[in-house]
Amino acid sequence: MRTAPIMAEDIHFHARRTIEQVEEGTELAPKFDEHGLLPCVTTAAATGEVLMLGYMNAEALKRTIATGEAHYFSRSRQVLWHKGATSGLVQKVVELRIDDDQDAIWLRVEVAGDASCHVGYRSCFYREIPTGPGDFERGLLFRESEKTFDPLAVYGDVPNPTKL
Amino acid sequence: MRTAPIMAEDIHFHARRTIEQVEEGTELAPKFDEHGLLPCVTTAAATGEVLMLGYMNAEALKRTIATGEAHYFSRSRQVLWHKGATSGLVQKVVELRIDDDQDAIWLRVEVAGDASCHVGYRSCFYREIPTGPGDFERGLLFRESEKTFDPLAVYGDVPNPTKL
Repeated sequence: MRTAPIMAEDIHFHARRTIEQVEEGTELAPKFDEHGLLPCVTTAAATGEVLMLGYMNAEALKRTIATGEAHYFSRSRQVLWHKGATSGLVQKVVELRIDDDQDAIWLRVEVAGDASCHVGYRSCFYREIPTGPGDFERGLLFRESEKTFDPLAVYGDVPNPTKL
Repeated sequence: MRTAPIMAEDIHFHARRTIEQVEEGTELAPKFDEHGLLPCVTTAAATGEVLMLGYMNAEALKRTIATGEAHYFSRSRQVLWHKGATSGLVQKVVELRIDDDQDAIWLRVEVAGDASCHVGYRSCFYREIPTGPGDFERGLLFRESEKTFDPLAVYGDVPNPTKL
């Protein structure tokens, strides 16, 4: 019965008391790192493709739970980030999961516009690293050949989040 | 032509010079965090299920590339970790990808024994966090009902890696 509205501020996390509670229980007791963040794997619900790896702080996780839309914490901009607020590429949550020790999130989403990468590709993971025997100087292999959107048209002169 | 053997020590990463090089180029120039690590999403190649989120240091990434078997860096034990060395649940690399700014890895694998979680489940992400309207005290929902293996039988008295 998911009927009553819920606000991010209504959501409270449990204290972490025992390994059994964290691994085998039903209490949400996430562990954030020294920066107050946990990593979030976001996949396309329909295909299983990994779209991006983002980070959530407590507020982003609470808003994602409350709204059913993906929120992250932008490490490059150091702000709460409602994915799609600038680009329109909102991610609707199909399923939200947490891992055994509750320090990582798996988010299955449907994406308006079918793109999640600021470079313009569908997935951020558009290049393969060849493995196994062979000459390592083969270099990376592109696995998406065309961009889904034009980053300049969507983001304009917003600074590129990639840091060297 | 992936025929010549390659050793982890033969693999060298490129220096990060420009955003264009990192995002749009074919040079492998990974960015490790202040602990010398980058996160790695590992999925089952056949189903797209997210099995685990691990971390790699430079050595783990080089060994994964060279051997075609997943290597990680264990943060709890602070050692290089050939996945499956203890449990036998080796992860064979089907495809290795890197993201736009080269600070995250996506590893598609086949797993001997069909399990990747130290608690005994197939995936580490065996619990769902309900989202959207409703009473938050619903708690987590188990999405795997049976363990794939018995952790006690496989790991014996090896310390549990989960930290509170």
